[in-house]
Amino acid sequence: MGKNRLEAFSDGVIAIIITIMVLELKVPHGSGLQALAPLLPVFLSYILSFVYVGIYWNNHHHMLHAAGKVSGAVLWANLLLLFWLSLFPFATGWMGENHFAPWPTAFYGLVLLMAALAYWVLQRTIITAGSITLGHAIGRDWKGKLSPLLYVLGIALAPWSPALAQVVYVAVALTWLVPDRRIEKALAGAAD
Amino acid sequence: MGKNRLEAFSDGVIAIIITIMVLELKVPHGSGLQALAPLLPVFLSYILSFVYVGIYWNNHHHMLHAAGKVSGAVLWANLLLLFWLSLFPFATGWMGENHFAPWPTAFYGLVLLMAALAYWVLQRTIITAGSITLGHAIGRDWKGKLSPLLYVLGIALAPWSPALAQVVYVAVALTWLVPDRRIEKALAGAAD
Amino acid sequence: MGKNRLEAFSDGVIAIIITIMVLELKVPHGSGLQALAPLLPVFLSYILSFVYVGIYWNNHHHMLHAAGKVSGAVLWANLLLLFWLSLFPFATGWMGENHFAPWPTAFYGLVLLMAALAYWVLQRTIITAGSITLGHAIGRDWKGKLSPLLYVLGIALAPWSPALAQVVYVAVALTWLVPDRRIEKALAGAAD
Amino acid sequence: MGKNRLEAFSDGVIAIIITIMVLELKVPHGSGLQALAPLLPVFLSYILSFVYVGIYWNNHHHMLHAAGKVSGAVLWANLLLLFWLSLFPFATGWMGENHFAPWPTAFYGLVLLMAALAYWVLQRTIITAGSITLGHAIGRDWKGKLSPLLYVLGIALAPWSPALAQVVYVAVALTWLVPDRRIEKALAGAAD
Repeated sequence: MGKNRLEAFSDGVIAIIITIMVLELKVPHGSGLQALAPLLPVFLSYILSFVYVGIYWNNHHHMLHAAGKVSGAVLWANLLLLFWLSLFPFATGWMGENHFAPWPTAFYGLVLLMAALAYWVLQRTIITAGSITLGHAIGRDWKGKLSPLLYVLGIALAPWSPALAQVVYVAVALTWLVPDRRIEKALAGAAD
Repeated sequence: MGKNRLEAFSDGVIAIIITIMVLELKVPHGSGLQALAPLLPVFLSYILSFVYVGIYWNNHHHMLHAAGKVSGAVLWANLLLLFWLSLFPFATGWMGENHFAPWPTAFYGLVLLMAALAYWVLQRTIITAGSITLGHAIGRDWKGKLSPLLYVLGIALAPWSPALAQVVYVAVALTWLVPDRRIEKALAGAAD
Repeated sequence: MGKNRLEAFSDGVIAIIITIMVLELKVPHGSGLQALAPLLPVFLSYILSFVYVGIYWNNHHHMLHAAGKVSGAVLWANLLLLFWLSLFPFATGWMGENHFAPWPTAFYGLVLLMAALAYWVLQRTIITAGSITLGHAIGRDWKGKLSPLLYVLGIALAPWSPALAQVVYVAVALTWLVPDRRIEKALAGAAD
Repeated sequence: MGKNRLEAFSDGVIAIIITIMVLELKVPHGSGLQALAPLLPVFLSYILSFVYVGIYWNNHHHMLHAAGKVSGAVLWANLLLLFWLSLFPFATGWMGENHFAPWPTAFYGLVLLMAALAYWVLQRTIITAGSITLGHAIGRDWKGKLSPLLYVLGIALAPWSPALAQVVYVAVALTWLVPDRRIEKALAGAAD
């Protein structure tokens, strides 16, 4: 399987996920400004998820760039990641429509957690398939290891204080907003 | 018609199918955990269909890789396969929302069967169009010939025991989870 | 503008159109076989539209293959075609849900007609932009000229006999099922 | 990050946006011609938005063509633009279903404004990342600077006369219908 086709397919799926999330923003029936008010939580959830999916798209690209061979295991690990990403629209909609209620907030964190674990599995699978570059690039991978722990923290906080859980989710997103320079650096080093 | 464009178009359609299936997971109105409970069958159906579409994407890629010329017949056989795959979201939703009731389960098997037959037609069409590589690669093609028979068995079981039918569908999926190594092998052999 | 990007974008839009049409096949609430019965007309409409969009995708590819420069006019003529194709899901759904009633059938014909005219405009624009190959290839273009007339006939028949209108729509689709060999031939000739 | 993948991903998202907008054209329940009448405003909104998204796709392509390196900042500026474009289906649906009422019309203008500002930010980011070609190409960029002002005018007019606001939105679209010849010229000049 060519890396290109895996990349193109993943791009396609991620592009669709990031776009159909907006369908959860249901057109309101009234024509006054106040008709928009109940949509605000859905809109905020949408922004957060848009940023998360954008982060995944970006890091996914860097990771595949450093990948070598695409084995069957890599392919299925990639589909596992896409599976969890595909639940973002649902989790976003449920959290937004319930105004960040405890359980939907915890569930959102669970989807974040599963996507992070699937990303980690994909990373290990690519390294196992022989990408020394990626192995070097991620180094100790503290962001990759810390994020799932923080999501667990967010999930645990959600039933007591959904607001605190949101703070955790937003904070993790912020640490990832910067593209993974480690891989870029390692690739540049390899090119020297 | 270039093979690349056929591949890109098929990838696009498959990426959309695999993603819009998740729209059948309707956001529930309640905010408690129990609001998720009725969605469990839909979620399980979604997982099964996600795996099936992933299998088709994967094998489709390997098959096209071994294809030679893309004739008009290949193109329409490919569209026939995409047509049946496009019914996965519907069949998945109907089966999930009715908690694996007999008829929806049988119907799901029918869609699996038709997709398998369309895949087989596409395979024959590509071989007829002149791909000796693919002809060698698939060999006796026992998996390709056995699967439709098992789907028929599943359909026949569904009215009596939908659970048994599900076992059949899951079992067939498991036999396909491994990408088609025969084609990979034949291609590698051709490259020697 | 590179031809490749125009092709990729059109492929994307057409892939989405052909796939979201299936969303008009709403999952029924009952779990018996009889729950599927009212969906039959929607399903038949879906098949017809799937074939039509497949035809457009196929011929569009052949046409662009013979295109030379992609001018701004070509680009907007292409968007005009995509616009009318994007109304297929709506027209299909309306016709199917109303069991091929007169007005929805006429409206479906109107969308077919507008798409055919947009296709013709795109063809002229590409030839004007300097593609001699395409000009030679289409020759007298009797299929391209006859189809709109037949759609007009179908629209006129629809209020009196929607069934006859359907016969016309299906018949035109059949004449187009074969990819446009004229262009293939002219290209092969140009390659000699 | 390769420019190609950024382009392909953006194309995918834009193709989906332009296509799912049509889902706001809900299939009416009646089968008479009069069932279509209430959809006319939605249809007109759809046309306007289709043209706008087409314009963005077109200009986006020209802009990326003149881009040099794709830095992390370019990537996120691009995602910001896609974010605002992704709100077109919502804004279009709200405006259309409320028959161009004042607030939905103002909101539509706001989305137009934010997309225009995001486009401008992306442009500046690409120039900052080192594209001298793009810097030369856009020159004084009067269209890019005037459009946001006109959108502000439209938003301000909407509460008093939504019709006038529409005139403004349509007029701005018309000035952009022509692809950005400045960049084409500058690129041609650079090729000399």
